[in-house]
Amino acid sequence: MRFDVQVKISLKKGMLNPEASTIQRALALLGYEVEDTDTVEIIKFRLDEEDRNIALKEVDDMCQRLLCNPVIHDYEIEIIEEEK
Amino acid sequence: MRFDVQVKISLKKGMLNPEASTIQRALALLGYEVEDTDTVEIIKFRLDEEDRNIALKEVDDMCQRLLCNPVIHDYEIEIIEEEK
Repeated sequence: MRFDVQVKISLKKGMLNPEASTIQRALALLGYEVEDTDTVEIIKFRLDEEDRNIALKEVDDMCQRLLCNPVIHDYEIEIIEEEK
Repeated sequence: MRFDVQVKISLKKGMLNPEASTIQRALALLGYEVEDTDTVEIIKFRLDEEDRNIALKEVDDMCQRLLCNPVIHDYEIEIIEEEK
């Protein structure tokens, strides 16, 4: 089966996010007042696996080993089976 | 009114995405075969505006002036009114 995978990676609560602070400051310099700026990264790909649970386990391994730093990141995995 | 805003920024079709290629190659080195890897960035913030249309117009201006590069990026704006 073929799956569409999305991994949503964000910083854990309480971690400083310098990218978000910079965006907020730059917006303020242009006159836009916004609050609680935050950034999230999404990594998308396609994957062939026998079933949904195996795919989920494999993507979780990828997150732990490469895509995320579990010390500082939270991640959410979304798997959708592709229609044929 | 207070709005929760999400801006989803992706590269236009046909643009090279070196980050995605690197992720795909690194996953392959670890033995994970995935395809069509892509990355999307989400910028989230809160905004006070009189109504939804004004907020949307303001966020679109932010995208054009600072958040995106309209030559290479596509962006999608999502605005949700916060409950009181």
